[in-house]
Amino acid sequence: MKPRIKTMEELSVAIGVSRPTLSRFFQDPGSVKTKTVERIQAGLERVEYVPNFFATRLNRKTTGIIGVIIPYLNDLFFTKLLQSVEVAAFEAGMTVITQCSHSDPAIEARAAETLMSMNVDGALVAPLGDQSDQSVHLRLKSRMPFVLLDSRPKSMPNVDFVGSNHTQSTGLITEYLCRVGDPPAFLAMPRVNFNALEREVAYIARMEKLGFEPEILGTEAVRENGYFEEHGEAVLGDAFAQGRLTDRSILCANDRVAIGALRAAAQHGLSPSRGTKGGLRIAGHDDYPLCPFLTPALTTVAQNTDAIGEEAVSRIMQIIRGEVSGDEPEITLFDGELKLRESA
Amino acid sequence: MKPRIKTMEELSVAIGVSRPTLSRFFQDPGSVKTKTVERIQAGLERVEYVPNFFATRLNRKTTGIIGVIIPYLNDLFFTKLLQSVEVAAFEAGMTVITQCSHSDPAIEARAAETLMSMNVDGALVAPLGDQSDQSVHLRLKSRMPFVLLDSRPKSMPNVDFVGSNHTQSTGLITEYLCRVGDPPAFLAMPRVNFNALEREVAYIARMEKLGFEPEILGTEAVRENGYFEEHGEAVLGDAFAQGRLTDRSILCANDRVAIGALRAAAQHGLSPSRGTKGGLRIAGHDDYPLCPFLTPALTTVAQNTDAIGEEAVSRIMQIIRGEVSGDEPEITLFDGELKLRESA
Repeated sequence: MKPRIKTMEELSVAIGVSRPTLSRFFQDPGSVKTKTVERIQAGLERVEYVPNFFATRLNRKTTGIIGVIIPYLNDLFFTKLLQSVEVAAFEAGMTVITQCSHSDPAIEARAAETLMSMNVDGALVAPLGDQSDQSVHLRLKSRMPFVLLDSRPKSMPNVDFVGSNHTQSTGLITEYLCRVGDPPAFLAMPRVNFNALEREVAYIARMEKLGFEPEILGTEAVRENGYFEEHGEAVLGDAFAQGRLTDRSILCANDRVAIGALRAAAQHGLSPSRGTKGGLRIAGHDDYPLCPFLTPALTTVAQNTDAIGEEAVSRIMQIIRGEVSGDEPEITLFDGELKLRESA
Repeated sequence: MKPRIKTMEELSVAIGVSRPTLSRFFQDPGSVKTKTVERIQAGLERVEYVPNFFATRLNRKTTGIIGVIIPYLNDLFFTKLLQSVEVAAFEAGMTVITQCSHSDPAIEARAAETLMSMNVDGALVAPLGDQSDQSVHLRLKSRMPFVLLDSRPKSMPNVDFVGSNHTQSTGLITEYLCRVGDPPAFLAMPRVNFNALEREVAYIARMEKLGFEPEILGTEAVRENGYFEEHGEAVLGDAFAQGRLTDRSILCANDRVAIGALRAAAQHGLSPSRGTKGGLRIAGHDDYPLCPFLTPALTTVAQNTDAIGEEAVSRIMQIIRGEVSGDEPEITLFDGELKLRESA
């Protein structure tokens, strides 16, 4: 066992290099003579010592941390996005500290405070939605490089943003459904979720452009405490029980809503399929990782989470490094891609 | 807009309290006179200042951080467990910093280094599995309060651990399947996953106790790059294509494997159900959040993730506070609970 060293004072004694020199070594190795660097490195080999992440960064301008806030954890869309952010950040030599809002504006506000107090170099924030306290995002933005991710509040139109082009993606699947079968109804969410709402608007626009009458379902919460899957199952379950919508094409606000919709169909003995006119079809949005394993496998339009995560990290690094000014916000939207499977 | 204060020196000038007094206030408010505390608090109201999380903790014994390492993110079992850890930690007044290993031993090792360098007060670690570099866990354990979560390497039998009692949970569902229908075969995983292996062993023991011949499937990887769902789908898909196993009861190593198994059944026109003798039945383990929404809804045995998360936080806090010595490790296993649905 190597001797365990806890402080820089102890380290100075153990390897015979002065405390200020060690300090300079950990903050900026280039500022120390090559011979001394070699002596320190050889000394570090002989002991068990981990330099304190923050102590060695206290006098630097940067902590090397990107702070991330995501709205909830139990959602494979966000875990996939977070993974792509982490991989890109690691490649840029950064450490990622993620805080989750757990669907609660108070926790979201605390997450922002935590990132501020940790002096992270920049923040990537996927906001909760309408429930968010907007002043929290504005305060965070006023203090550090800040990029919105995945969804954006109406109140922050002029902020760096990376997400999906919902007009394109929702338009694409709406047009596909109209082209090969009946025009779809849109199974929405209660209007607190920015992305669901953007897709609802995009659906209406495309339907009108194609000369069809839009029809929106499920903007009211049907069950208490229900979220995406529960909502989709409740809205379609109630309709199917009354004999309605059983031969319709249904475009869902996202894949988790569609998973609930598929469940409602199965419970009423209905099999959504790619069949053309007059049969039940169900489609989603996002390409949730489980889509290919559902029965029937879910037809959807994929968000490019890899590109969104990479671009968000690339953008925040540009702002952190001062390569762009934060005053000219850039909005980057990635197109969605059709994933034709069995359900529509 | 309040004036923005960046350093404690600036703060001292702005609110007229000396730098050392401010320092004592942020590190231990009780050590400062009540009148001065009031003056500082009134001053802080007038400015925009966030004390640096780590600077104010540099001379304290604790950082107030629990570090967590999870093996991968794209799994709703781990996000549910992490949520329960975060909620319990917040209630204990702690900040949680989670690092994900992304299924890569090198990233797991780096995650451990990050937690050490951040001087977290204790670590909760859900290890990757057989692929992990065991010395990483041992080193982390030698440096700080350490509790293993969810699964444990054979090489670390005497370490604080909180997880599920797989002998009980797997025994319970094995016995249920035997009682109401044919004795099940076990759809395993390649033997690098500790929990899947513990369940395999528990299945064999219970089958033998009940006087039935155990039968293990799928211990070899059938497809490259496939993980849980892909593995379940591939193993059963290949068997069904050869006309094998179509009337069997299949207990899967976990629900994600079972999701793949359900998919293979659907693709071969088979409908697993609760029917008794001589029909296909598929069951899982964990109670993955999507189980009730699958078609058919998945019969499984639930892990008590809430209790596991709470107990892990409670245990690490006891060690951090010195209420128990780390020398008498405690193993806490929670029982599973049957969730009877449609698939078995």
